[in-house]
Amino acid sequence: MDRRSFLKTSALGGGAAAATSLAAPAVAQGRMTWRMVTTWARNFPGLGTGAQRVADRITAASGGRLTIELFAAGEVVPALQSLDAVLDGSAEMSHGAAYYWQNKSVGLSFFTGVPYGMTSRELSAWVRFGGGQEIWDEIYDQFGVVGFLSGDTGTQAGGWFQNELTGIDDIQGMRFRTPGLGGQVWQKLGASVTNLAGGEIFAALQSGALDAAEFVGPYNDRAFGFHQVRKHYYTSSFVEPGLATELVVDKAKFMDLPSDLQSIIRDAAQAEYDNMPSEFYYYDPIALADMVENHEVIVHKEFPESILQAGAVASRELLEEILSSGDALTRKTAESYIRTLNQLRGRTQNTDLTFALAREKYFDISDLG
Amino acid sequence: MDRRSFLKTSALGGGAAAATSLAAPAVAQGRMTWRMVTTWARNFPGLGTGAQRVADRITAASGGRLTIELFAAGEVVPALQSLDAVLDGSAEMSHGAAYYWQNKSVGLSFFTGVPYGMTSRELSAWVRFGGGQEIWDEIYDQFGVVGFLSGDTGTQAGGWFQNELTGIDDIQGMRFRTPGLGGQVWQKLGASVTNLAGGEIFAALQSGALDAAEFVGPYNDRAFGFHQVRKHYYTSSFVEPGLATELVVDKAKFMDLPSDLQSIIRDAAQAEYDNMPSEFYYYDPIALADMVENHEVIVHKEFPESILQAGAVASRELLEEILSSGDALTRKTAESYIRTLNQLRGRTQNTDLTFALAREKYFDISDLG
Repeated sequence: MDRRSFLKTSALGGGAAAATSLAAPAVAQGRMTWRMVTTWARNFPGLGTGAQRVADRITAASGGRLTIELFAAGEVVPALQSLDAVLDGSAEMSHGAAYYWQNKSVGLSFFTGVPYGMTSRELSAWVRFGGGQEIWDEIYDQFGVVGFLSGDTGTQAGGWFQNELTGIDDIQGMRFRTPGLGGQVWQKLGASVTNLAGGEIFAALQSGALDAAEFVGPYNDRAFGFHQVRKHYYTSSFVEPGLATELVVDKAKFMDLPSDLQSIIRDAAQAEYDNMPSEFYYYDPIALADMVENHEVIVHKEFPESILQAGAVASRELLEEILSSGDALTRKTAESYIRTLNQLRGRTQNTDLTFALAREKYFDISDLG
Repeated sequence: MDRRSFLKTSALGGGAAAATSLAAPAVAQGRMTWRMVTTWARNFPGLGTGAQRVADRITAASGGRLTIELFAAGEVVPALQSLDAVLDGSAEMSHGAAYYWQNKSVGLSFFTGVPYGMTSRELSAWVRFGGGQEIWDEIYDQFGVVGFLSGDTGTQAGGWFQNELTGIDDIQGMRFRTPGLGGQVWQKLGASVTNLAGGEIFAALQSGALDAAEFVGPYNDRAFGFHQVRKHYYTSSFVEPGLATELVVDKAKFMDLPSDLQSIIRDAAQAEYDNMPSEFYYYDPIALADMVENHEVIVHKEFPESILQAGAVASRELLEEILSSGDALTRKTAESYIRTLNQLRGRTQNTDLTFALAREKYFDISDLG
């Protein structure tokens, strides 16, 4: 599992050492260039643009002492080999989502998103003030990297379907593209879940290889054109209440940086944890309005009660399975996450939710401005 | 209104010039110290700690090339003279809330919080992607400063009352401490609204000079001890759906900085726009639980319907008054804000709110973890 340790004793390890010595003169002159690989297409709305901004922020704030060169998915390695590229030393940084690496450690999923779990704000509270970062560090220490929250999509849409869903029966055997822990929940509900890279979804929906798919939300989904081949759009996911992106950095190289550059990297990632969702919250409604007004998309605000209810049972089951799994660090992650969610959710519900409900019910200014 | 222009032609203007020439050698050596005055008590939970972190981030990310020395409320100037201290050149930065300066321009309130208005996420979407920053720049350009979002409390609590409120009749003539536009809304509802600095509220409640008060939320309110003198706590405000803090910087001095230091300031402020609410979301529930369990505080999730409803009417009226006011830039601000809120709120309501409602209704993991 610890590919890094393996590499250190392998022939490729020599390559990593060579890269370090190549970098040294650049450091001495106070200027160096690092490679950031990403799991996103170049400048893909929100995700790719957010990754680019993290890179640009570091370059700008360091005055070019640390220039970050971004390589989008497929440009040097395929999307889902981004972490491996950092582990084998061919890149210093990766921008992606931690749950892509759940095959390395299930605990990593908690730093992206969990069915019926934390919103982006709750996640940030846990990671920054509730001990989440320290647990994340413990997981990634095994691989010789360090992870930082670097963006979030906000609560995602539920997905694209052929017809309106009337209940749990409608999703039995439904071929549905939905990844990660959310996919496991839909599988438990009876859907036939597959994962496909974002760029392959449209063709699979069009050919009928897929019945349904969810990706992110209106801003991204419109870019992929899903509205051309499916018309029933559920705007609220219960399996992805937030999807955080991560910035992964080679830990040894990070620790070798002067502390000002370390601070610059941390601040850039955290600034983008605010900026990326701001981009989604601004453009999602514009994209949705376009799809409704110009492309006959039919919006459903929420899934039928039987699906939401069974989804909650399945999501709880999934957490129980993780808690009873053999891996101590994953259990520790889940326990900390659940304890914190139980502690935090009251604020979201009794303050934020109460406000939003009152605003929806009483405050109409649609004719002003 | 343009105090800066006035100062430039006054005796004090000489002082500003002297400060600039004093700063020059420090810049040449690549190191300088800037003063940040704040409207908050030193290390006051969330607000004061957030201001300190902005200062520390800039110092750290610049490797001490730009060291920020923080002066809390009253240390060099009283809280509500922080902006003036930047205008008269006695500080380079101020950390506070833009609505404190609504006597200089009503439009500034929109960059802090508006009754029934934007949540912290919606505000960030408007400021960063919807043209809000450009309008804010236009307002502050008049004073020779520039403002950045630098934190947010998240949706605030509704406040502390002697008794449970049963309806609009209960608040007639009630002496209530609640500032800004929110105070104007409560005034329209019949309350007798006063503003007092945070540190004066406790004594006024204790003596009976005030019937009721709202400040921020559990984390701050507990620090002030309001729970010792009032027991009925409303946990969701409709007048402060978010309260953004600002970082104000002397514009000429900001523009004179090398671009890397400008980037560092921007990233530090934006990182803290995520960090401060994370601190509130983490500690608010802990403080609330303590006050309920150990101090007999009685929590009311929402105000009575008649108050929420009349509050919405009054909040709309307030916006109409601002829209019809004589100041073109304030009108432009309000129009942009309202247009963007109308565009954005559907996402909050049909995605975020729908998720949070489903989680509240179906997902119970209180016995796990």
